[in-house]
Amino acid sequence: MSFVLRDLGITIGRMPPGKTNTIIDVPGVAVGHTTLIERDNIRTGVTAIIPSTGNLFYEKVHAAAVTINGFGKAIGFPQINELGKIETPILLTNTLNVGKVSDALISWVIDKYSVSNREILSINPVIAECNDSYLNDIQTRVVEKEHVFHALNSACAGQVEEGVVGAGTGMSAFEFKSGIGSTSRIITLDGAEYTLGVLSLPNFGRREELMIDCVPVGQALRDFGKEESPPDEGSIVVVIGTDIPLSHRQLVRVAKRATFGIAHTGGTCHNGSGEFAIAFSTANRIPDDPKRVFLDERRLNDTGPAINEVFQATIEAVEESILSALFSAKTTIGRKGHRRVALPIAHVVSLFTERGSAPSV
Amino acid sequence: MSFVLRDLGITIGRMPPGKTNTIIDVPGVAVGHTTLIERDNIRTGVTAIIPSTGNLFYEKVHAAAVTINGFGKAIGFPQINELGKIETPILLTNTLNVGKVSDALISWVIDKYSVSNREILSINPVIAECNDSYLNDIQTRVVEKEHVFHALNSACAGQVEEGVVGAGTGMSAFEFKSGIGSTSRIITLDGAEYTLGVLSLPNFGRREELMIDCVPVGQALRDFGKEESPPDEGSIVVVIGTDIPLSHRQLVRVAKRATFGIAHTGGTCHNGSGEFAIAFSTANRIPDDPKRVFLDERRLNDTGPAINEVFQATIEAVEESILSALFSAKTTIGRKGHRRVALPIAHVVSLFTERGSAPSV
Amino acid sequence: MSFVLRDLGITIGRMPPGKTNTIIDVPGVAVGHTTLIERDNIRTGVTAIIPSTGNLFYEKVHAAAVTINGFGKAIGFPQINELGKIETPILLTNTLNVGKVSDALISWVIDKYSVSNREILSINPVIAECNDSYLNDIQTRVVEKEHVFHALNSACAGQVEEGVVGAGTGMSAFEFKSGIGSTSRIITLDGAEYTLGVLSLPNFGRREELMIDCVPVGQALRDFGKEESPPDEGSIVVVIGTDIPLSHRQLVRVAKRATFGIAHTGGTCHNGSGEFAIAFSTANRIPDDPKRVFLDERRLNDTGPAINEVFQATIEAVEESILSALFSAKTTIGRKGHRRVALPIAHVVSLFTERGSAPSV
Amino acid sequence: MSFVLRDLGITIGRMPPGKTNTIIDVPGVAVGHTTLIERDNIRTGVTAIIPSTGNLFYEKVHAAAVTINGFGKAIGFPQINELGKIETPILLTNTLNVGKVSDALISWVIDKYSVSNREILSINPVIAECNDSYLNDIQTRVVEKEHVFHALNSACAGQVEEGVVGAGTGMSAFEFKSGIGSTSRIITLDGAEYTLGVLSLPNFGRREELMIDCVPVGQALRDFGKEESPPDEGSIVVVIGTDIPLSHRQLVRVAKRATFGIAHTGGTCHNGSGEFAIAFSTANRIPDDPKRVFLDERRLNDTGPAINEVFQATIEAVEESILSALFSAKTTIGRKGHRRVALPIAHVVSLFTERGSAPSV
Repeated sequence: MSFVLRDLGITIGRMPPGKTNTIIDVPGVAVGHTTLIERDNIRTGVTAIIPSTGNLFYEKVHAAAVTINGFGKAIGFPQINELGKIETPILLTNTLNVGKVSDALISWVIDKYSVSNREILSINPVIAECNDSYLNDIQTRVVEKEHVFHALNSACAGQVEEGVVGAGTGMSAFEFKSGIGSTSRIITLDGAEYTLGVLSLPNFGRREELMIDCVPVGQALRDFGKEESPPDEGSIVVVIGTDIPLSHRQLVRVAKRATFGIAHTGGTCHNGSGEFAIAFSTANRIPDDPKRVFLDERRLNDTGPAINEVFQATIEAVEESILSALFSAKTTIGRKGHRRVALPIAHVVSLFTERGSAPSV
Repeated sequence: MSFVLRDLGITIGRMPPGKTNTIIDVPGVAVGHTTLIERDNIRTGVTAIIPSTGNLFYEKVHAAAVTINGFGKAIGFPQINELGKIETPILLTNTLNVGKVSDALISWVIDKYSVSNREILSINPVIAECNDSYLNDIQTRVVEKEHVFHALNSACAGQVEEGVVGAGTGMSAFEFKSGIGSTSRIITLDGAEYTLGVLSLPNFGRREELMIDCVPVGQALRDFGKEESPPDEGSIVVVIGTDIPLSHRQLVRVAKRATFGIAHTGGTCHNGSGEFAIAFSTANRIPDDPKRVFLDERRLNDTGPAINEVFQATIEAVEESILSALFSAKTTIGRKGHRRVALPIAHVVSLFTERGSAPSV
Repeated sequence: MSFVLRDLGITIGRMPPGKTNTIIDVPGVAVGHTTLIERDNIRTGVTAIIPSTGNLFYEKVHAAAVTINGFGKAIGFPQINELGKIETPILLTNTLNVGKVSDALISWVIDKYSVSNREILSINPVIAECNDSYLNDIQTRVVEKEHVFHALNSACAGQVEEGVVGAGTGMSAFEFKSGIGSTSRIITLDGAEYTLGVLSLPNFGRREELMIDCVPVGQALRDFGKEESPPDEGSIVVVIGTDIPLSHRQLVRVAKRATFGIAHTGGTCHNGSGEFAIAFSTANRIPDDPKRVFLDERRLNDTGPAINEVFQATIEAVEESILSALFSAKTTIGRKGHRRVALPIAHVVSLFTERGSAPSV
Repeated sequence: MSFVLRDLGITIGRMPPGKTNTIIDVPGVAVGHTTLIERDNIRTGVTAIIPSTGNLFYEKVHAAAVTINGFGKAIGFPQINELGKIETPILLTNTLNVGKVSDALISWVIDKYSVSNREILSINPVIAECNDSYLNDIQTRVVEKEHVFHALNSACAGQVEEGVVGAGTGMSAFEFKSGIGSTSRIITLDGAEYTLGVLSLPNFGRREELMIDCVPVGQALRDFGKEESPPDEGSIVVVIGTDIPLSHRQLVRVAKRATFGIAHTGGTCHNGSGEFAIAFSTANRIPDDPKRVFLDERRLNDTGPAINEVFQATIEAVEESILSALFSAKTTIGRKGHRRVALPIAHVVSLFTERGSAPSV
């Protein structure tokens, strides 16, 4: 359930959220976390997004990956974009742990998806990362295979934990504590309801840039609980899932709209920011079967207004997911005594109240 | 001079504008317009941005072109990005006039830049466009060679006219009358002052999306002077010039930041929008001289914070240029009696006053 | 009919050609030319490839455009790749005539495809070019609207003229006279026959680079009829059409394989070469109907070996089309008395005979 | 020393090789291997290319990475292309070992490049791979940290071993045993000599496709020692290094030319092939120093013919490096008794002799 903003009367956008207002509102999507808080210097973890139940390796889903600003170490993108599909869960972790997490994901895929009579000899693991080194001793690389397996095996289609969990454990945004945020939107197309969900890992932004639903909160809270921190320029990973039938090209277009959601929170994509968006559609499964010469698929007609609704849903859900990560996070002390303060929610609410005529509150 | 917003007390961003707050604050840049308002159905024109005085064909400037959303007919991009340079002025016009304007630009380049002993046998004209068919009879294609020559030959390094002029004559944004907008920012690097300027042609957005310095003006003016208009999804061209020494790769990075400026005005890049940004740097001239084997050039080190200042300047200047186009435009009636109302400035100011504590006003 | 190589016993590749061994073997594809040979200095023209009969604007076809080396002035690519479709015929002409030809194509589309109750207000014309300035007075830009209309209106699904015609009139390749070349291949997929056709406009290469079916003909004919010519680095446009159902992403992959066909003739893509490939599939028509929310389409499964057959067909057909342009061209004298000699076919055949054991002859 | 082809009288291209005819002819470049041949099922390894002696992390080199066909798992590319530089050695290994090798490289970078007063908190490891699963038990992932360290620490600027070593241990090309191949070319620019070197890991191609200097060797040896093998579609990694001063954009252009070298050996880039090229230039070092606002650099002027020489050197060196890998490899038996036969060199030479008039032999 991700109603922390809405319960405070802050509604981002105009489209309705799904039942839990998280990415698992997309049928078949599951999310799991492993959170690692150890001693005074480990604040990190791993988050798994499983696009679809069943054997994802042998029944892949359409996907696309977009680099907004490439100062980042995400892996798996060239093959996603060449073949237009994804064959593993998507894992998020910290910058220096990508190699180990990638290796663990290969083990898990072999364990989980192998079938008799076929050998899995090539796997394209998909991992994205942000840098949690302000709070976490990143050189230590503590995320091990068992942590990855736990995140994957505990992944659940029933709820998504937000805030200081999983890959979000050590992250910061706008010099507040950040973490994992997730949201969803319902879109009615041709009389039927579809869902688009987002899970994001925001780790970017200078304090004064933060905007919440057009209120310049970052300026009002310019010095609130702020530490002298290095110009940690951060990054963000946005994962977008949907059951709307979209082709690879259309998923590229959707993923690119993540930028607008980021911009609406005040983000401006600094030099040192690794900003990546991955989008997948579960509507058509692609059998890993060389004997199937043709596939009959349905896809959205992007001639008409329908695709604009998909773009709008993406932008709103990305914006809200970033804010939800902030509203769900708790103040955290980590490596070298560094302290990231949580967003002071009561104070934020008072800023909204002062504004009074705020149209969307 | 482009101080219409600042004169009203609305300041976009934190960086200082140049002397005229337009793209011509970048030394050597000149801008010219031809405005075509004829009978009751012609509302169009052409705008020329000349990156640099002197013989641009034989002393080219570094450049990059970025496609934000490719529903548009801009020409010249593949060569800009292959060779990292631009060899002609940049022209803006309406969608269906690109061919004629391109042909006229070739004539002008041959006339203007030919030198003895060398024949010009290949030219890469750069033209971008928006669709002005709501107010203009676009099928007629009235922009002729003499109009293009006039815009180029009258281009001036002394001032930029904004609003309902040149290519902006028939454009709309947020269902208000739009046109040409231009702004600039001063950046101090290593003790010296540099300038980054923007000229934009905004022609996008639904009414309710318009944000001005975080005030949701579009929602407050949802029905103000609004006509039942077709879902004209519009587009935007952003031209960014600077005297900061930037390589092609760095200019790509700068041009991509235009998206954030667009997003801050409420734009969300609809399906049917052709959104393009072109950036050039005048700091290093590239001689068209096959005998010169090596070039010694200075460029910004994008390891450090300096490039973030360039990004920030871009984002601010793009945002302000879009707003400046709106604030400078006048209500216009055109084809089929269609009417695009100007932004009601007094009303907008009152919305700012109501907001009271608005931090940046 | 394009059997000039095969009639000499030179067979490129292993796959069978279609009935005419040209691009019109793809059902619905038509090709037309206007050839302009005037006085002693005009050697140019225009070539039209119409992807499909019927109303192409309101029933578009899937398409993709790839830039191999971007020193060229092709227009229309950003929109092809954003929307994955093409809505006009593809025109080829000389470098400086792109603007005029583009404008003429807009007129033709409005004339030809307008239907009652709908206005055409946006058109994405697709034009590619090579530089024929060695033989043609390129600055004169003699291709007028009537020439474009003639090429389009005379386009015929019954035969393709090759050699010194249309856009090929003034082109050279490997310092021999070149022109238009076209070929096709039959591919059996899931028990049914499909066709892939290519039309190319080769205008690149140094003499010594020319390879014909692995025979280094260019080296053997190093000085044959050669003039001291400027380092005209040339370019090539490759148009690929097929009735195999392919998505945009798959058409990108197919278009990229043009490079291998070019390489097999000895081409190496010089700095000054504009090398572009455009691919379209006629299997699925995309209605320009905003009310159609979903499309049900068949596409190739690129998991299996079938896509490799499509790649192979592309590579073979591109290679043969380039050679066919050379074998079909006649010696031509043009501007300033420049003379491009035709490939001396008897001499080439003797080189093959000498080689003796040549496996594919 | 890589003169195996030249010693047989087979000369690829027209440009002179460097002293050892390998990538280490580029000053400062070092190469190391760890070869893992264990029991009857392990045939794999790791190869390290160190672009430059000194502290590569704090004095980075210009670089670019190009995806020819993205069915591959290379990591590090988005950041190389965003920032135009490389900060770690380049490692090659097998497909499923990328994660572990990446993690080991991070450890090595921290060990090797850390300086006092600065913490390394972000590293972009660059790893590329091919699939050696025909001969190697790839699921086992035997390349450990110590193997990576050994390849890096034993990297030597004095010689490059070719053939069945390092990452090449288990690779095949054209259904012959392949491995590591390396070559170089000398280019004289403005009176001074520069070097461009290539190291490649070819693992692609069907038997009948193999061409050696225009002799269709693969057809002549169609069944030589061939096993019934799965359609292992393979891949290739090409690493290009040079001391010519080239910008990121120019390095992209150079890396793209690898395709022509691959094509000249008969390669056609099958669907399942991961084809990647990485290029770097050691001429300008980029200090990781945020205080340095500007950099003064020399770069090639790509207006003139000089860049064509760089392209030519690349194409020749890539072609020869692929062949050198084949000519240097020995017959290898591996997993499940699979056997990859070496190219029968005497037989190949006899094919050249038969051809007789072969111009370049």
